[in-house]
Amino acid sequence: MEEFLKEWHRMVKERDLAALPGLLSEDVVFHSPVVHTPQAGKRITAMYLTAAFHVLLNDTFEYVREISSDHEVMLEFKVEIDGIEVNGVDIISLGGDGTIKEMKVMVRPLKAMDVVRAKMAAMLERKPE
Amino acid sequence: MEEFLKEWHRMVKERDLAALPGLLSEDVVFHSPVVHTPQAGKRITAMYLTAAFHVLLNDTFEYVREISSDHEVMLEFKVEIDGIEVNGVDIISLGGDGTIKEMKVMVRPLKAMDVVRAKMAAMLERKPE
Repeated sequence: MEEFLKEWHRMVKERDLAALPGLLSEDVVFHSPVVHTPQAGKRITAMYLTAAFHVLLNDTFEYVREISSDHEVMLEFKVEIDGIEVNGVDIISLGGDGTIKEMKVMVRPLKAMDVVRAKMAAMLERKPE
Repeated sequence: MEEFLKEWHRMVKERDLAALPGLLSEDVVFHSPVVHTPQAGKRITAMYLTAAFHVLLNDTFEYVREISSDHEVMLEFKVEIDGIEVNGVDIISLGGDGTIKEMKVMVRPLKAMDVVRAKMAAMLERKPE
């Protein structure tokens, strides 16, 4: 977990999106903050996370709390988007090989969910992959 | 933390809402999943959490994941409300005396936020305290 977190934080800090697929298991499952149905597989998860990074990783983005066990971690973040304060968590489970086998994102409050949903929809319609 | 979690899970399992104030610091701060502005103080936090327990603690409620450190814990829950699957987290920080000094709740997906918001509003208008 320590090694994973070091690489995750490096990737986020350097906006190194090219490193993302290497951190995902082939059969990774992604749970979005907005939609109930999970997204399964590396290709679609990489697409969603790449769009999410484009939406979330502006200059105000920062991780503010971290709680971890040997194979699971909750990373809490804050970011301001269009004047709206977005507070959220990434909850990540690692597989035996140290890559992400499950990732779930939640955001609060309601206004933050609205702005993230709108921005993600616009980003995914642009087909970033 | 171990002692706190034992008492928290007992309280939830037995729906023993009378035990709630005893777990809160006088200056506890509560962050709702819906509203940005934090709620400060034991009285108002107990009121919100009591309403939340009435909304969330039906027979389908269960905690499904827990990640903790010595003074912080993330408890993930699932519950079905009016046919909507609600997935959320309680993120709790304990003070030096072992009571809750900060609590934050997030829910997903969007439909879950909508149903929780509507039910909480209805519950708080009934003035449960």
